[in-house]
Amino acid sequence: MTAAKQAIIVVGGAGALGKSLINSLRTSPGSSASSIISVDFFPNPRATHSVPLMATIGSITWPETAMQALAKVRACLKDEGGSEMPCRAVLHVAGGWSGGGVHDPGFLESMNRMWICNVQSAALGAHMAGLYLRPQYPSVGRQAGMGDATRDVGDGGTKSGGLMVLTGAGAAVDPKACVSMVGYGLSKSATHFLTRTVAVDPEVVRAGLTALSILPTTIDTPANRMVMPDADFGEWTRPEIIAERLVTWVEDASQRPASGSLIRVVTSQGKTSWMPVLDSSS
Amino acid sequence: MTAAKQAIIVVGGAGALGKSLINSLRTSPGSSASSIISVDFFPNPRATHSVPLMATIGSITWPETAMQALAKVRACLKDEGGSEMPCRAVLHVAGGWSGGGVHDPGFLESMNRMWICNVQSAALGAHMAGLYLRPQYPSVGRQAGMGDATRDVGDGGTKSGGLMVLTGAGAAVDPKACVSMVGYGLSKSATHFLTRTVAVDPEVVRAGLTALSILPTTIDTPANRMVMPDADFGEWTRPEIIAERLVTWVEDASQRPASGSLIRVVTSQGKTSWMPVLDSSS
Repeated sequence: MTAAKQAIIVVGGAGALGKSLINSLRTSPGSSASSIISVDFFPNPRATHSVPLMATIGSITWPETAMQALAKVRACLKDEGGSEMPCRAVLHVAGGWSGGGVHDPGFLESMNRMWICNVQSAALGAHMAGLYLRPQYPSVGRQAGMGDATRDVGDGGTKSGGLMVLTGAGAAVDPKACVSMVGYGLSKSATHFLTRTVAVDPEVVRAGLTALSILPTTIDTPANRMVMPDADFGEWTRPEIIAERLVTWVEDASQRPASGSLIRVVTSQGKTSWMPVLDSSS
Repeated sequence: MTAAKQAIIVVGGAGALGKSLINSLRTSPGSSASSIISVDFFPNPRATHSVPLMATIGSITWPETAMQALAKVRACLKDEGGSEMPCRAVLHVAGGWSGGGVHDPGFLESMNRMWICNVQSAALGAHMAGLYLRPQYPSVGRQAGMGDATRDVGDGGTKSGGLMVLTGAGAAVDPKACVSMVGYGLSKSATHFLTRTVAVDPEVVRAGLTALSILPTTIDTPANRMVMPDADFGEWTRPEIIAERLVTWVEDASQRPASGSLIRVVTSQGKTSWMPVLDSSS
């Protein structure tokens, strides 16, 4: 009996964290059952499919670009037969950083860039989660109770609902920490709000979907090492550590935090801890 | 002795709330001392100056559009002599609404529109507050303490720091209330975060600036009456009520809530109340 093929969508699959994540997904025990779709400006050769995002320049607007990518993702989900492959997880690991306070001349430009890098990519992830994380439970319709949504769906099916993870930021739960990077803080705060909104969507709840945000501090990427060569790298989180945790959450629903959780990722002296952040309101 | 001319900037001065606000500012006792600058896609003939925003189409991006408007505002602040007129308040009353949950086909388009209407306009207001609400206190520099920032600055000067108000939304403190209008909720939640970030900016604190958000529910505008003709208008807030309150906050700093407050505006049976919302994190 072969495990049924399921899809995992990685938004930002060509970035430092995305590459690490796709490597971990490839080597996980469930990998043979997974079609990994990377959505990014650049391809990731280790993904099953790389769906390109076109840079939004000239007259092409973001919604058009995103809708084009969405159509390509839909085609990838259908290419192994006629019917749509079930989708197990949408993992958003895209993003960028930009500094600037409200009085800085580049403030509006920074706001714009952070919106594009961080919020638009997270929104694309949330939208795909809303569209694709439900069809794997065809019998869990609008009338079904929550109990039904987490049952075993058969050969190779997950034993739980799908998983959506959006990448937020540890700093963005505290306005004081964001004074010198307002656009970044606002974009990540918006991502947290998005995660919490998806988590309480009645249709999402009925489908048994877990919606989470991870809130890293500094990730140990080549780019970060280049711009902060004198930092204490023992306080940074290695991408592999985050990737392993995400794979665990994908594979084993019992390990997932409660849906709607914002999980702060803190590394100290090389040890990483995962702590839910209390986030009572916007 | 004539009161010194001061500027009040209204972002969204041609909307229903903006028109009401500029009317109220015109008829307030301090109006003779105020140069009212309306920033909007359309002019407001009752403003001293109307600074146009160009619709962002084709190759003109929002940051460019906003920077053009900013240059024009700067020119308006200087046109009554050589030196820059002090600015008393930046009041952001622009915005729009759009529905849509994460699984709706128009989700990404709705997100985009809400970002443009609500966050970009609020960010422009915050940026102008950062740039212009400080020069009226030339002696309050980086070394001055907070106590200095609220002293009387002389003939016609305000007896307190400047005022920034950004328009948020009552619904956007609760993800559950935003499930069917995610883009709207996220954009207003981001506006709240922006207000709180500005309020704790050390330079803003030193300058004695008060940063607030108002969180209305439904404002009683012709457009809202048209789309919701059967609603109970006694539960809606008339623009004049909000305008009067904003003018009070502009004129009399002792009436202002603490900087960083998010003030929910609730109207019931025609009576409006103003209640700070507890908002502990993003």
